[in-house]
Amino acid sequence: MKIYDFIGAPNPKKVRIYLVEKGLDVELCPVDITQGEQRSPEFLAKNPMGGLPVLELDDGRCFSESLAIIEYLEELHPEPPMIGTSPEERMRIRMLERICELGVLARVAQWMRHSSAFFAGRVKQNPAIASAALDQCHRQLRLIDGYIGEPFVAGERISIADCTLFATLWFAHVMKMPLELPPNVARFNADFRKRPSAKA
Amino acid sequence: MKIYDFIGAPNPKKVRIYLVEKGLDVELCPVDITQGEQRSPEFLAKNPMGGLPVLELDDGRCFSESLAIIEYLEELHPEPPMIGTSPEERMRIRMLERICELGVLARVAQWMRHSSAFFAGRVKQNPAIASAALDQCHRQLRLIDGYIGEPFVAGERISIADCTLFATLWFAHVMKMPLELPPNVARFNADFRKRPSAKA
Repeated sequence: MKIYDFIGAPNPKKVRIYLVEKGLDVELCPVDITQGEQRSPEFLAKNPMGGLPVLELDDGRCFSESLAIIEYLEELHPEPPMIGTSPEERMRIRMLERICELGVLARVAQWMRHSSAFFAGRVKQNPAIASAALDQCHRQLRLIDGYIGEPFVAGERISIADCTLFATLWFAHVMKMPLELPPNVARFNADFRKRPSAKA
Repeated sequence: MKIYDFIGAPNPKKVRIYLVEKGLDVELCPVDITQGEQRSPEFLAKNPMGGLPVLELDDGRCFSESLAIIEYLEELHPEPPMIGTSPEERMRIRMLERICELGVLARVAQWMRHSSAFFAGRVKQNPAIASAALDQCHRQLRLIDGYIGEPFVAGERISIADCTLFATLWFAHVMKMPLELPPNVARFNADFRKRPSAKA
């Protein structure tokens, strides 16, 4: 098994954080998005969407979508549990993860597409879209601030929701997104940054 | 257990299709978004995000996010399997579901927010955002057209990816979104529409 990876994007980061927290050693194969390597015929044969990460099994079958990959790894390696230990707890953790992903990561990504220099020549950038994404991001973070547990998003135990939220905040920081974090989210971010997995 | 529901939105539709295909009988409690009922203090206590569907357990605990709810119901009722029967098959089905959701449903929703009369007084509509969402939607549908199986998205057996894709196409149709379906997606849509669950 190997995972095609890119160091500068949030979804691969989410998976790398998960791997470190689980203590899993999976071969990482870098694909350089800045050089357009994800658009090569070889890579598009692995993932026609051209996105990262991609998990390749030993038989050559390839799978994209970071959360589908994480759920797969969790099934193969249930310990330590990062998606809960009962159906109700798993529902809650999956809910929290999706709130972080659809509510924040998707908006951070949209802001970035419409305001970063990297995307300037690649998409038709629209400042109104970037501005709306930033507003929505702040609104969602304020809502999440009411949900978030301590020390982790789901409470006492680390979960996949932490991987998603930290990877998102890391990416927003790297991209210099002018994001103001509400108090509980800021506390989570500062605490999680001290973990070895934060550098993954 | 009960599910708070709204007849005119894609995520509740996705869950209702799933319930019919699984043969599950869960009490549905209508919440009228057109009257703002999802913004009432009673409903916000169940889901601070104000979204639907919401699953309420008999002990009163509430959970949002349609896919987290579906994964929970699937754990309680594994037969007939709609998220596969092996870790690899589940990874593939979750991947397909996410491609349909993040690639298409998210863009249909964005198009709708920025072009429908319903949202005209609710958000600052921007025709450029609606236009970009329509373009991205077409691009993603063409990519999905290369993935899609027959008769179902994942191949011979129905899965949660069908619930998501059909609910999305149904919503785009209801909202009169000028979506041109590529051939395999159009074939899937026409075939699935004949199933009893399509009317759920």
